[in-house]
Amino acid sequence: MAAQYVADRRDIDFVLFDQFDAESLTHHPIYADFNRKTFEMVINEARKFALKELLPTYGLGDRQGVQFDRGTVTPPECFRRPFELFREGEWLALSEEPEVGGQGLPFLVSNAAGEYLIGTNFAFSSYAMLGHGAGKMIERYGTEHQKDLFMKKLYSGEWTGTMLLTEPDAGSDVGALTTSATPNDDGTWSIYGTKAFITSGDHDLTDNIIHPVLARIEGAPAGTKGISIFLVPKIWVNEDGSLGEPNDIVCTGIEEKMGLHGSATCSMSLGSKGTCRGLLLGEANKGMRIMFTMMNEARLGVGIQAFSHASAAYLLALEYARTRKQGRAVEEALDPTAPSVPIIDHPDVRRMLLEMKCCVDGMRSFAYYIALLMDHHRMGASPDDQEMADDLVGLLTPVLKAYNGIKGYDVCTKAIQVYGGAGYLRDYTVEQISRDCKIASIYEGTDGIQAMDLLARKLGMKKGQVFMELLARMNRTVEEAAELDATRPLTEGASKLVSRLGDCAMAMGKSLLEGNLRTAFAHSVPFLEIMGDAVMAWMLLWRAVAAARTLKSGAKKKDIPFYNGQIKGAEFFFSNLLPVTMGKMEALTALGDAAVTMEDKGFGG
Amino acid sequence: MAAQYVADRRDIDFVLFDQFDAESLTHHPIYADFNRKTFEMVINEARKFALKELLPTYGLGDRQGVQFDRGTVTPPECFRRPFELFREGEWLALSEEPEVGGQGLPFLVSNAAGEYLIGTNFAFSSYAMLGHGAGKMIERYGTEHQKDLFMKKLYSGEWTGTMLLTEPDAGSDVGALTTSATPNDDGTWSIYGTKAFITSGDHDLTDNIIHPVLARIEGAPAGTKGISIFLVPKIWVNEDGSLGEPNDIVCTGIEEKMGLHGSATCSMSLGSKGTCRGLLLGEANKGMRIMFTMMNEARLGVGIQAFSHASAAYLLALEYARTRKQGRAVEEALDPTAPSVPIIDHPDVRRMLLEMKCCVDGMRSFAYYIALLMDHHRMGASPDDQEMADDLVGLLTPVLKAYNGIKGYDVCTKAIQVYGGAGYLRDYTVEQISRDCKIASIYEGTDGIQAMDLLARKLGMKKGQVFMELLARMNRTVEEAAELDATRPLTEGASKLVSRLGDCAMAMGKSLLEGNLRTAFAHSVPFLEIMGDAVMAWMLLWRAVAAARTLKSGAKKKDIPFYNGQIKGAEFFFSNLLPVTMGKMEALTALGDAAVTMEDKGFGG
Repeated sequence: MAAQYVADRRDIDFVLFDQFDAESLTHHPIYADFNRKTFEMVINEARKFALKELLPTYGLGDRQGVQFDRGTVTPPECFRRPFELFREGEWLALSEEPEVGGQGLPFLVSNAAGEYLIGTNFAFSSYAMLGHGAGKMIERYGTEHQKDLFMKKLYSGEWTGTMLLTEPDAGSDVGALTTSATPNDDGTWSIYGTKAFITSGDHDLTDNIIHPVLARIEGAPAGTKGISIFLVPKIWVNEDGSLGEPNDIVCTGIEEKMGLHGSATCSMSLGSKGTCRGLLLGEANKGMRIMFTMMNEARLGVGIQAFSHASAAYLLALEYARTRKQGRAVEEALDPTAPSVPIIDHPDVRRMLLEMKCCVDGMRSFAYYIALLMDHHRMGASPDDQEMADDLVGLLTPVLKAYNGIKGYDVCTKAIQVYGGAGYLRDYTVEQISRDCKIASIYEGTDGIQAMDLLARKLGMKKGQVFMELLARMNRTVEEAAELDATRPLTEGASKLVSRLGDCAMAMGKSLLEGNLRTAFAHSVPFLEIMGDAVMAWMLLWRAVAAARTLKSGAKKKDIPFYNGQIKGAEFFFSNLLPVTMGKMEALTALGDAAVTMEDKGFGG
Repeated sequence: MAAQYVADRRDIDFVLFDQFDAESLTHHPIYADFNRKTFEMVINEARKFALKELLPTYGLGDRQGVQFDRGTVTPPECFRRPFELFREGEWLALSEEPEVGGQGLPFLVSNAAGEYLIGTNFAFSSYAMLGHGAGKMIERYGTEHQKDLFMKKLYSGEWTGTMLLTEPDAGSDVGALTTSATPNDDGTWSIYGTKAFITSGDHDLTDNIIHPVLARIEGAPAGTKGISIFLVPKIWVNEDGSLGEPNDIVCTGIEEKMGLHGSATCSMSLGSKGTCRGLLLGEANKGMRIMFTMMNEARLGVGIQAFSHASAAYLLALEYARTRKQGRAVEEALDPTAPSVPIIDHPDVRRMLLEMKCCVDGMRSFAYYIALLMDHHRMGASPDDQEMADDLVGLLTPVLKAYNGIKGYDVCTKAIQVYGGAGYLRDYTVEQISRDCKIASIYEGTDGIQAMDLLARKLGMKKGQVFMELLARMNRTVEEAAELDATRPLTEGASKLVSRLGDCAMAMGKSLLEGNLRTAFAHSVPFLEIMGDAVMAWMLLWRAVAAARTLKSGAKKKDIPFYNGQIKGAEFFFSNLLPVTMGKMEALTALGDAAVTMEDKGFGG
């Protein structure tokens, strides 16, 4: 995969500076030390590092894979050097405050850098970046001593982290986990249990790995209310911070997967010798809340993973379509002497590319918008604004995670299709990207779990006010679009969409209130997809508005096709894809219950 | 993969005998020797063979893969025994006339047997079954001598066949191929060229392989009008049928693919020593027409491949959903002491399963309906009927091929989703099925190629009368549904669908007539998908009618859930999925041209 196929720098700049006005962040005191140049510098450096060090390991890491031998996990050899450089470059804590070892950058900017760091080789990032979430939990809930012992080393990448949540019989149903913790006299806890599907559960890239482990203290309440989190280091960390004895936690096997072959997915055994020790993080029985600090971050990360795969797949397919000659122009199809044309000239190929472009553009703006909300939360223009920004992040997180997972995979599938037969071959990167991307709909909570979170927890937040604020913000963009000739024709469809999105939420809410839980949840993923479609429409319209404004005020000649492309993309979405969303809304508001009333035996088999 | 996950025997019987009244075929003289028992016997035998001999090789063949060493291709070792048995069982020519070595069965019945033979292990079938198409071409276009030399040995499976069409720079654009043929004094032809992506291009399962090769005779017209077909045996076949010297055709490499690892995808070199010989099949420069005999059969085969993958994936996911316990019933979600339930109890899992079931059921009926049309063509109640049946096969072939490819892959993706994390692991068969299925949208003509065939050649057949006949047949089922209480509520939606399908075809036709070729072709795949959706609706309604009739006349108690499931499936499709199709129709008839008018540079990159 060559350099130009990683995250589209031109488009990143557009989103940052044209769509979301990243420069205005520097007017706030906490970001006053930065300016557009420094923002660009960070992104340039991330890009340079990604292209030079990570990119060459993408296919290689897939082929080298992970080795497992008697409890020892060895990542792809080619990951060692970039891992060292990643650590030296201090890439992990870009948005953390300087006092905890961070760079203090806006989330919006670290998100752009993250697109390169996460998106170029996610199997690599799964080692390098998971420690961030563990560090964040310790920053928020740990004692000062725990921070001293673990946090900075996690943020610096000197050690890595994991999340030991899933067990063989407790995946999505976290409350069913059985790993146990019993107190020791010295204030530590003895941990016993087995965990499954643990990303980067073991490796030899660092001297130590800090495992946050979900476990149940003996006698704790059943379900999620009786879960606590313990910090279980691979190598025990002495009071003075020095490394002690290996702890009683081992990897008992790794999974062979469809993709992400360079990432170690481990089964872990804790306390098989009875000597696994951990430290309680935060309060006993409050583990779920603490874990969600990390989980929400991980879900946003997966949303970015999926769209990064999609972005790379799109750029590769686009380049292939521009260079691969096959067949004649449609007007000359019957003339065998006509020259063959690049396949981008074929209308169906253009249709596929434009569908992909709409997805990738929309998903990028969506992910960056959430980062911008995180900045609004941090900057806190007013306490109300601050809270609303955080609530909107909460509302949109399951949508970003699941929608990007679904659509990201769809874009990868289309990329294979643009390549034709070549796309099915290992020789072409889109095949690997597609295998790597599928997991995004599964881990950190499947689409079904995200949709339950959206429907059961997020939609009704603050009596629906958060959702209403989302609609209001969408309508604000529609109003802006109405002021410009280029985007005005799209506003009728957009208004109707926002209004129908409200209807859908009402239908869901009513169904829940009336106790038709099963019917409501049978429509939960379609509802999430509808919300995602609406966010895409919003983001694409917003992009078109930003592009039309720039064109109106005079763009550089060489940039005009790019800006026109933004408007065309929105036109395509509204004309070709939005009617399908409206159809989905039609189906949703009818609230059919066949899936619920179907007898189990009726499924056949 | 255990036995019950291969093709659903209960459903096959329903389609054959309830939906399509297979028994009535035996009233026709050509099928008078058969009865329901003999039909069932053939299918039972196919099933027994598939389960006992093919199924154990599915995962194994994927892991063993194909070996290539200096021109020699070795298929998975585990394919040898089933290949011998396949040949001994005379499974290849079930529907051919006895005089050419066939069993004379109705296509409808051989199609059902084929679901087991093709669907259980497609990598295996790709060796065993490709010879059929080559045999068919020779049966139709070969000289008596060619039939004696090749046809029976292909039909019996003593030798296998291929199709050497694609070249590195001429894939979809067949007319651009450059392989050349020059006449020799002895009536043979010297062939020179290279071919790519040749399925089963070489192997050692048989003594000989017959390669039909598309090539251009020196001085032939440019494009597809100058293409001829030559029979190029791997080992030369002497006049008396004995084997001669190895011919100058070698495999130069095999592809590493996403899936179908047990199937050899070969690059072939012809005439590298200047001594590759072939025999002209049929008339010079008429190769395209001859090739389409094989190609149409191959396209139907791919449609069956894709839906067989989907069927297996569905049955596996269904079984997993019935046995995997995780989480509590939605009404007891907040009670941690409530027992965990099989995941089929979760509304979103049911929704996924029912979407999958609708696809699989609809695709099975669709494929079997085409086989039934082939029987109508063969039986020929009247010359008009006979021609119309053949025309309908022509109209529907690109739809079956592409639609089943798209939806089949979609079902496989959903199956992975039902499995959650486990679905991403090599340990579970759905992962392999998904990788194996992706190719169905690509080979034998991509979705784009199928949609062009549909739009440019098939839709306008006989001034649109063939398409109108399709609509009339759909409406006939709607009328039948109106007579039954169980299905009457679906008829309003169904009528509207048929009428809107007509509108869509009109919009496409108008666009073509007015010369808006690019706009029309930019909507060609969406149009094909709409047609496929409509066929699904038709088939599911037809199934519901058949089920409602059987229920009305009194079904066995144990069969009632199955029949109810047919009606629920149709209800689900009409309530949850059909509005989405109506949305697609809305988008199509608006004929947006953004994909066409977009500047190339506007795509970014």
